[in-house]
Amino acid sequence: MRYELYYWPTIQGRGEFVRLALEEAAADYVDVARMPQRDGMGVPALMRLLEDTAAGRPPFAPPILKAGRQVIAQTANILLFLGPRLGLIPKAEATRLWAHQLQLTIADLVTEVHDSHHPISGGLYYHEQKREAKRRAADFRAERLPKFLDYFEGVLERNPGGDRYMVGKALSYVDLSMFQVIAGLSYAFPRAMARLESGCPRLMALHRRVMVRPRIAAYLASPRRLPFSTEGVFRHYPELDAPPARKAVRKKAVSGKR
Amino acid sequence: MRYELYYWPTIQGRGEFVRLALEEAAADYVDVARMPQRDGMGVPALMRLLEDTAAGRPPFAPPILKAGRQVIAQTANILLFLGPRLGLIPKAEATRLWAHQLQLTIADLVTEVHDSHHPISGGLYYHEQKREAKRRAADFRAERLPKFLDYFEGVLERNPGGDRYMVGKALSYVDLSMFQVIAGLSYAFPRAMARLESGCPRLMALHRRVMVRPRIAAYLASPRRLPFSTEGVFRHYPELDAPPARKAVRKKAVSGKR
Repeated sequence: MRYELYYWPTIQGRGEFVRLALEEAAADYVDVARMPQRDGMGVPALMRLLEDTAAGRPPFAPPILKAGRQVIAQTANILLFLGPRLGLIPKAEATRLWAHQLQLTIADLVTEVHDSHHPISGGLYYHEQKREAKRRAADFRAERLPKFLDYFEGVLERNPGGDRYMVGKALSYVDLSMFQVIAGLSYAFPRAMARLESGCPRLMALHRRVMVRPRIAAYLASPRRLPFSTEGVFRHYPELDAPPARKAVRKKAVSGKR
Repeated sequence: MRYELYYWPTIQGRGEFVRLALEEAAADYVDVARMPQRDGMGVPALMRLLEDTAAGRPPFAPPILKAGRQVIAQTANILLFLGPRLGLIPKAEATRLWAHQLQLTIADLVTEVHDSHHPISGGLYYHEQKREAKRRAADFRAERLPKFLDYFEGVLERNPGGDRYMVGKALSYVDLSMFQVIAGLSYAFPRAMARLESGCPRLMALHRRVMVRPRIAAYLASPRRLPFSTEGVFRHYPELDAPPARKAVRKKAVSGKR
């Protein structure tokens, strides 16, 4: 089965969660919008799929996966479908639902990351909502980010299969997505993450372990891995990150006035 | 099987999507946090579940469903689990994934509805982010709401099973959720919806058909159905709705100045 992934060709975005699963499984897949237009692919192929008014089951937005005649959208739904087929989750229903529950919570976090730089509208530029973004990002860093990290750290800590994996005793697509989240947060909010990472050692270790898995390492070193940028979901705007640590200021000797 | 639903007891919120499915199926269920504390239920039971540090598969947030020993969170995930068990979706995998894809798109819309009144932080009051809410709600009404309604209207229109149902030829939990979305939007944004509803006649008809189904009608008339309020996800703040229609102003005869 050759899978076709349809996603924006210049960003990691939400498509990256699917790409990582396909790469780890060494699946046969085509990243359609990144292939040449002269071969009937490229962005026009993505647009045709999005605008196909004859489709009985139309997708709302990318990423979209084609598997034979099946067309599946919504990132977490694609992974729900791919997981057992790629050997990235056990087949037992209860385990699949638990993995999916975690993936949906990751999706919620990703939406909040997006809204930290676009709190008013995805249709406006960042600079058109910068003031609101500063306020939302401050709340995100202080309240939401620690809450999500604590939660996922707790999931690892309590996993009956051990704290090396999010689900059970083996790598699943949830671990790959968690890797991507930590990578993205570390890119977008380096100062905030530097202060928080001591509180989530298991997540940071998971990130390092996934990064050096042979197929993931090869993928990350390949041109298939797009760089993080201020076009994607995870964006680095220094003014949205935590303020720089204050240097220890040597107190001036106050001699004159008393 | 007696299901236990754990959700905040005073609001419809995201729990309502689960309640509607349980009600339509006449399932045996307990809405735990709304039951007496003296019977070991009420909000303390919800808090115990949320704070149970021994749980191997902890939930991040309500709604949470207990089915025997299984504990399932994330609204769409709960419906994915309940759907075939309650006879509210066919068992074929492709159909279940399609229904779930729609439910996840509904969840995205619901998040955007929430953020229209809380664009900065769920931890602050509305009046503390009112200015930003006005800006976000204006964008939501002008751009996002029409886009989502067009999409869902198109799903009905193109459904190979006919335009009476979102999925196939029979009622599914997606129809119940779509009913709740239209009901919530009509409560929160009555003026905006009055202008949009002529563009989505199938959705409005679906809303009316679901509302008069015997079990849903009985539920809506019962004390089990909580009212919409400015505590829930769908909130009516007149200043976030479309401006009132301008009255036809009779032009004053301009006689003096030329």
